[in-house]
Amino acid sequence: MTNPIQKSSFIFLSFLTLLSQLLSPAHTTTIKANAPCNRIQLYYHDILFNGIDAANATSVKITNPSAISNFNFGMMVVFDDPMMVVFDDPMMADGRLLSPAVARAQGFYFYDKKDIYSAWFAYTLVFNSTDYRGTPNVMGSDPFLEKTRDLSVVGGTGDFFMARGIITFQTDDAMGDFYFRLKMDIKLYECYKK
Amino acid sequence: MTNPIQKSSFIFLSFLTLLSQLLSPAHTTTIKANAPCNRIQLYYHDILFNGIDAANATSVKITNPSAISNFNFGMMVVFDDPMMVVFDDPMMADGRLLSPAVARAQGFYFYDKKDIYSAWFAYTLVFNSTDYRGTPNVMGSDPFLEKTRDLSVVGGTGDFFMARGIITFQTDDAMGDFYFRLKMDIKLYECYKK
Amino acid sequence: MTNPIQKSSFIFLSFLTLLSQLLSPAHTTTIKANAPCNRIQLYYHDILFNGIDAANATSVKITNPSAISNFNFGMMVVFDDPMMVVFDDPMMADGRLLSPAVARAQGFYFYDKKDIYSAWFAYTLVFNSTDYRGTPNVMGSDPFLEKTRDLSVVGGTGDFFMARGIITFQTDDAMGDFYFRLKMDIKLYECYKK
Repeated sequence: MTNPIQKSSFIFLSFLTLLSQLLSPAHTTTIKANAPCNRIQLYYHDILFNGIDAANATSVKITNPSAISNFNFGMMVVFDDPMMVVFDDPMMADGRLLSPAVARAQGFYFYDKKDIYSAWFAYTLVFNSTDYRGTPNVMGSDPFLEKTRDLSVVGGTGDFFMARGIITFQTDDAMGDFYFRLKMDIKLYECYKK
Repeated sequence: MTNPIQKSSFIFLSFLTLLSQLLSPAHTTTIKANAPCNRIQLYYHDILFNGIDAANATSVKITNPSAISNFNFGMMVVFDDPMMVVFDDPMMADGRLLSPAVARAQGFYFYDKKDIYSAWFAYTLVFNSTDYRGTPNVMGSDPFLEKTRDLSVVGGTGDFFMARGIITFQTDDAMGDFYFRLKMDIKLYECYKK
Repeated sequence: MTNPIQKSSFIFLSFLTLLSQLLSPAHTTTIKANAPCNRIQLYYHDILFNGIDAANATSVKITNPSAISNFNFGMMVVFDDPMMVVFDDPMMADGRLLSPAVARAQGFYFYDKKDIYSAWFAYTLVFNSTDYRGTPNVMGSDPFLEKTRDLSVVGGTGDFFMARGIITFQTDDAMGDFYFRLKMDIKLYECYKK
């Protein structure tokens, strides 16, 4: 006759094995990239001070590009940029109606390649709206000649306490160095409640 | 009669379901913010070089503030600041006795808003004491006009191997741009042993 | 007679306890530092623009060292450096044959101490080879007078989606400020599949 106690013991050991495999941090876990635990899509507007229009500028150049590059290599910019929600609106020329700022993006970028355009970002998204209060922190490379670019959400505070994820950039509009608009698609895969 | 083997099988399947829910990384987990796995409270002292006192300076300005701002927007500072423990001491004028440095904070900050005071930090806490050897890495925004501000501990090495958490800033003392003291309350929620 | 159902219930409760202990994020987990889930060893070459050789330069100085330091305190450099694989080759003078670049390191460093040499890095490893496509993001202090230094991999994208780990620097060659070669030993302890 089968001994149920032995069966249970076997199950117990199986679980211990399973647990140790699954919980060992040096492991490979599967995440569905298309099923984040939180997702927020916002538009980032950067208006670099052009020497004239201080009132509307949202960012300032703090170092000059290197003379050895035609692609602004080494030029660093500090920004405090509004993040907007987009609504589809057939009345607008480009089909888009922008909300007031629901967050600010505060941080810096610099041009990080000598022979082509590319940038590197580190910043904090400062949310202070009815929907969210808190700050995801972001860093990564933005090779902005490519259609989409992925950066890392490496931590967060408040409603984004301890969050991690990916933020996908897509250029929505650009006019030389002095104006660009990026769609930032924030996808969190680690979410926490306090 | 109830079959204990079937019961066990049911329990086994229940656990598999529970495990898959809990271990799927794109999930929402509850953390008790007031129950970190490690907590260290230290005081950060920043003495910006004022053009005269090189010996006592712990930080230097590397870029100038933008002319379009009265709030140092774009001014960047590199620092190597001592981190002290505080003891209550009724003999001291302010009730505090500071220890020798138990760590150094090495990194940079810059002023990140055009119209009010606010800063952005990225740095490493370099511990080299009898208590700890290792380096938590920190980044985030510091809107220092607010009473408390949260930044992210995004990783670490040594005794802080792979750590993550929150670091709460509180201004303890400040004299213009050239001196300030911050209480840094380091709360780790992911701790690892090697 | 022993009741197998009660035994099972006991096991069930034991597991719930075990699970809650292990899965609570504010916990201490053991990682084997010598058993990463992925490991890549590459060599980083930095050739700072020396005022003459623009063609071979891979990095540029964007701020000057402070006058109060003899150790470049405050000097910031933006780099776009090739990352090579090393093959043992007895025909080479130093026993090493370097591959073409399998990745680029794009980011910045600055000298972060007044009285000794030390640096602080934040950068993205941009992989675009047959083996890997994706970008681990790195930050931390590099007290480069020490034999080995650990920094944090704080996130990643593509084949390094959501990765975390440690990157160990070891100086392989250096000529003043203008050339150095670092062995970067990338050890990931959190790996994910999409």
